Amino acid sequence: MKIGIIGLGTVGEGVLKVLTNEKESIFEKSRADIKVKYACDLNINRDFSFDFDKSILINDYKKILNDPEIKIVVELIGGETIAKQIIIEAFEAKKSVVTANKALIAKYGVELFQRAKQNGVSFLFEAAVGGGIPIVTPLMESLVANTVTEIRGIMNGTSNYILTKMKEDNLSFDEALKIASEKGYAEADPTYDVDGIDAGHKINILASLAYGGSIKFKDMQLSGIREISTVDIFSANQLNSTIKLIASSKLLSDKSVQISVEPTLIPNSEILAKVDDVYNAIETTGSYTDKTLFYGKGAGMDPTASAVVADIVKIVTRNHIESDYFFNSTKVFEIVDSNTVKDSYYIRVSDDFDIENSPFELINQIENYYIILANNISKNEINEILKDAKERLILRVMK
Amino acid sequence: MKIGIIGLGTVGEGVLKVLTNEKESIFEKSRADIKVKYACDLNINRDFSFDFDKSILINDYKKILNDPEIKIVVELIGGETIAKQIIIEAFEAKKSVVTANKALIAKYGVELFQRAKQNGVSFLFEAAVGGGIPIVTPLMESLVANTVTEIRGIMNGTSNYILTKMKEDNLSFDEALKIASEKGYAEADPTYDVDGIDAGHKINILASLAYGGSIKFKDMQLSGIREISTVDIFSANQLNSTIKLIASSKLLSDKSVQISVEPTLIPNSEILAKVDDVYNAIETTGSYTDKTLFYGKGAGMDPTASAVVADIVKIVTRNHIESDYFFNSTKVFEIVDSNTVKDSYYIRVSDDFDIENSPFELINQIENYYIILANNISKNEINEILKDAKERLILRVMK
Repeated sequence: MKIGIIGLGTVGEGVLKVLTNEKESIFEKSRADIKVKYACDLNINRDFSFDFDKSILINDYKKILNDPEIKIVVELIGGETIAKQIIIEAFEAKKSVVTANKALIAKYGVELFQRAKQNGVSFLFEAAVGGGIPIVTPLMESLVANTVTEIRGIMNGTSNYILTKMKEDNLSFDEALKIASEKGYAEADPTYDVDGIDAGHKINILASLAYGGSIKFKDMQLSGIREISTVDIFSANQLNSTIKLIASSKLLSDKSVQISVEPTLIPNSEILAKVDDVYNAIETTGSYTDKTLFYGKGAGMDPTASAVVADIVKIVTRNHIESDYFFNSTKVFEIVDSNTVKDSYYIRVSDDFDIENSPFELINQIENYYIILANNISKNEINEILKDAKERLILRVMK
Repeated sequence: MKIGIIGLGTVGEGVLKVLTNEKESIFEKSRADIKVKYACDLNINRDFSFDFDKSILINDYKKILNDPEIKIVVELIGGETIAKQIIIEAFEAKKSVVTANKALIAKYGVELFQRAKQNGVSFLFEAAVGGGIPIVTPLMESLVANTVTEIRGIMNGTSNYILTKMKEDNLSFDEALKIASEKGYAEADPTYDVDGIDAGHKINILASLAYGGSIKFKDMQLSGIREISTVDIFSANQLNSTIKLIASSKLLSDKSVQISVEPTLIPNSEILAKVDDVYNAIETTGSYTDKTLFYGKGAGMDPTASAVVADIVKIVTRNHIESDYFFNSTKVFEIVDSNTVKDSYYIRVSDDFDIENSPFELINQIENYYIILANNISKNEINEILKDAKERLILRVMK
């Protein structure tokens, strides 16, 4: 199936890269044969980080919309005016659309879905929420049996990075924002990220998917993290809690929801309190599944491209994947003996073991046992050294 | 589409309950019209926890296999001999099969997939790994662009419950196992759960899906948690780590994998260390997404039934979901004003505030601020009380 990509910014370039480098692997797994016929951007005379057939580059998106061979338009220019127009024109040309444009869906989701349906085409947007984290498809399809009443999570990586830095390095908001900008995590104007607008778009989309119907974005209450000070971070810590920018939505009745984005104190015992740096995590509460949490990289070229490509494959296969790739007998893997792999190990050995004349360093002595931590050694080697000890336990240590 | 359920144990009863109680909601979301024509069990003269048309109950599964109207067979009897035979007979009768039978897939996945393909039918098993956590579909479809090299996680709820109890209540393995049995989390013979066999089935399935090809279950190295003592739990804690039964798999080359189930020390900074009680969590490392983690209830009637039903819907729709349910304008939710909702709040207020004559209790005084925790109060009410203070910040506290 032939597709056209419109917009070669970070995500667009990522999608072109994945579809170029993984063409065969994607076909092997899904039987989806995806060919990028055009990749459109205003600036096409620039360097790219990978090799591909440059003849697909064009700067007039109309060429994609007017080509009857193109079945899927991948809209990745962002913004709300031209992007919206392109998507509507694509629908009218009977082309399916894949996008990562969260603002557009949060604000014009109802209209866009309606137009896609009128034209009998698909409109998919896994990448709009949670970047590389599968959440839109799991919410719509895997949790289909459930009434999902509550959704809450950390949906903006930039603000989460700033809050993490403030806590870990005892920085003010302005100092942490400066580091985020230097690292490329914050834009020149960080308003969308730090004032809760980006997270607002995302929770709007998820809530609309969970509850059906729609929620007016402009009526949502959004607040950000600019007011958080080191005093608050310190006080939260004293309360065994961590401050996170939480987007949340709760179905209150058939007709009403509580939905907001606001900095929130989370008890450190909750997994959400452990979600640091640019990572995102989204927790859904379903009537049958109870709590399910999805965690991963919420932004960036590669993770977001991964989600866009999953949507393209979905439209191409119009089906669940049933290729020869999974569970076949042509490729039976050899299993490497774990006991020969060098790793870090925790050792508990009875104190008849002659630790003085061993290569091991004692960490602790409890009851009649020595406790040892050993690095860069295999289980077989440890067992050989401990072979005369009365009792021993060896546990791998995860790095 | 008409389906037959074979096996009305915990999961089978759950699936029948979900398909009975959620019939309309599932249709509204997915346009999948699912009718249970037969539900088969050896013991059908018993009480059920919900109402349904008892005339669908039968005790001869052949009736399901011989009925040309039945398009999907839901195999939930478990075990490896009769279950395998029923699945093969269903395939030969050109019926798709949905199952939660992890042992069967881990051991006979290659053969079963081949037979499904030969007969042109589907074979789905989301519920076999992670119970209610969407992991099989996300791994096969959402991460299709990625080479997933590493998978690791907590895949057995019983052993995780035992390890959690041992740590939290300073119990021995035997004491914790006894509590798990009393709570219904451990079977009379707990071997499958505590010796790593159940987790072994699951990591075998996930690795085969991630790498393609197949991995011989009988060659896998499995160890369990029987040998873990309170000394180890204590020592791990001193090392800022937690002992978890980790199932893991790593692609080493085109042809070889390292795959095992073993108790492992995990640094407390890792999210996996926070996964307690009967919860499961599975972390995948993809070439584009990097780490993605899926967390939720790994077992139980309702979560597992949710996963089985998602597979049934998948086969019925043979497509991604494109119903009128999502983003429609017929149901626009009213957004409740968060400021009127009673909740718990963290308050930082400048010390010109007259705290003595307020209803608030002081938690701390830092720089020129009072720190306050207030319960069962709305933001509007707090703002009214603080209205004369020079400066204030109010943050919601998550429960």
